Amino acid sequence: LRFISVNGHRTELCSALDRGLQFGDGVFETMLCVDGVPLDFDEHWARLQQGCERLGIAYPEVRSEVLASVRDCGVQRSVAKLTVTRGVSERGYRSPSGIQPSWVLMVSDAPTHPTQDTGRGVRVKMCSTRVSIEDPRLVGVKHLNRLPQVLARAEWQDEYHEGLVSDPEGFVVEGCSSNLFVVSGNALITPDLSRAGVWGIVRRKVLTHAALAGISCEVKRLERADLERADEVFLTNSVFGIVPVASIEHRSYRIGPVTRRLLAELCTGTYF
Amino acid sequence: LRFISVNGHRTELCSALDRGLQFGDGVFETMLCVDGVPLDFDEHWARLQQGCERLGIAYPEVRSEVLASVRDCGVQRSVAKLTVTRGVSERGYRSPSGIQPSWVLMVSDAPTHPTQDTGRGVRVKMCSTRVSIEDPRLVGVKHLNRLPQVLARAEWQDEYHEGLVSDPEGFVVEGCSSNLFVVSGNALITPDLSRAGVWGIVRRKVLTHAALAGISCEVKRLERADLERADEVFLTNSVFGIVPVASIEHRSYRIGPVTRRLLAELCTGTYF
Repeated sequence: LRFISVNGHRTELCSALDRGLQFGDGVFETMLCVDGVPLDFDEHWARLQQGCERLGIAYPEVRSEVLASVRDCGVQRSVAKLTVTRGVSERGYRSPSGIQPSWVLMVSDAPTHPTQDTGRGVRVKMCSTRVSIEDPRLVGVKHLNRLPQVLARAEWQDEYHEGLVSDPEGFVVEGCSSNLFVVSGNALITPDLSRAGVWGIVRRKVLTHAALAGISCEVKRLERADLERADEVFLTNSVFGIVPVASIEHRSYRIGPVTRRLLAELCTGTYF
Repeated sequence: LRFISVNGHRTELCSALDRGLQFGDGVFETMLCVDGVPLDFDEHWARLQQGCERLGIAYPEVRSEVLASVRDCGVQRSVAKLTVTRGVSERGYRSPSGIQPSWVLMVSDAPTHPTQDTGRGVRVKMCSTRVSIEDPRLVGVKHLNRLPQVLARAEWQDEYHEGLVSDPEGFVVEGCSSNLFVVSGNALITPDLSRAGVWGIVRRKVLTHAALAGISCEVKRLERADLERADEVFLTNSVFGIVPVASIEHRSYRIGPVTRRLLAELCTGTYF
């Protein structure tokens, strides 16, 4: 950890009465920072605000403070994680009027992109942990209720790069900390996230870019059979951009032309 | 707040890297304490341990410390809330090996039982917020992923005592901070909690007592129509025991013989 601040103060300490701790009552953003500047910062900031609005949290006006802190760390490639909670209150779900949000900023060194050294895609596990089917106001929000991801991540150690999670009905939703794309022929398919999942920034970038580039993309309830049938598979998240998948359990995939094109047009020179 | 400790130290401060704050990665118990002793403490402690085991958290051996702290508060009627998290770690869902759990104990004055002054049942709202359909390992556990309850509780102020929440498919699951029982004829009905909900201590006491007392009880997926058809309705939780319901939205209920019997046999002289 290079840096941590709580409500703008250089401390690791916060109140144990924070509703983030009591209820997971908050949201967070994780951003790759290059030369002290978070990639896609406007998009991350907009999602943070939208998440706060959905939960009824008064988001803090700390945009420039966050940017200054990340810049002042002086790390060439870092990951900044910003957490915003509803604030501090006593026992009980009811939120007192006038509660002030809390925010925590952490900056750590960025990990290396998983394909950088090997040039190969990554190994992916099918997790047995199910992600929740949520209230429409919670679906998509990068909120702090992340126990399904914690349980899923505990299903493997270093033998996989990522694990895929399904919802309780068995539809494949996403990776533990990434979104999922499948290439079938020349078309993209990505899971419908209207009942479960996180609406990733890079997922949206890929969807927008595909539309502009004339690559058709279907958003649908994804089944295990869609993974079997796929020609290429890749993952997206804000730390790595696009990550090509070499295998899901025993099924292997090549890094095909669609993945290579999107890597070149969206990621090369920024995420790695 | 009468008392707060973090990991046994008299402080309100904890680490902002605690996984309770980062992911809601923990469990909690709320207990009514009378003359310095938590009611049903063995049951609460067993549930805490079981929740930790389900999440793979090494629960802390602080049973006697918790009991001593509650006793030393010297409050005649208090509510103790014990939170246990997986502990402190840096960014990322993966939990480092050897991580030590954190625990937070809070004690505050107990609220008055809602029927005590009026002798009447309480008003209940039907919330629009949906509780999550969860992974089987998470269902029932009193874990810290409580955003649905936070959103549901924000749907009313003081005009209701409690709000009922349904799952995304529309089945009625529980109250925001209580379990739900319906009386139909002489039989009890309570929602099936195999896909969503918290397995309450008093709910289980009522089910056990009903079985011993020859009161039949059906556990099933509860529909709105079951509430319309009901003769009596009551709520259970660990702070109030049993709370008779006077109305759900515009439908009124009397405090009938089954509710009165269970109040007398399970609650009078302990919860109020």
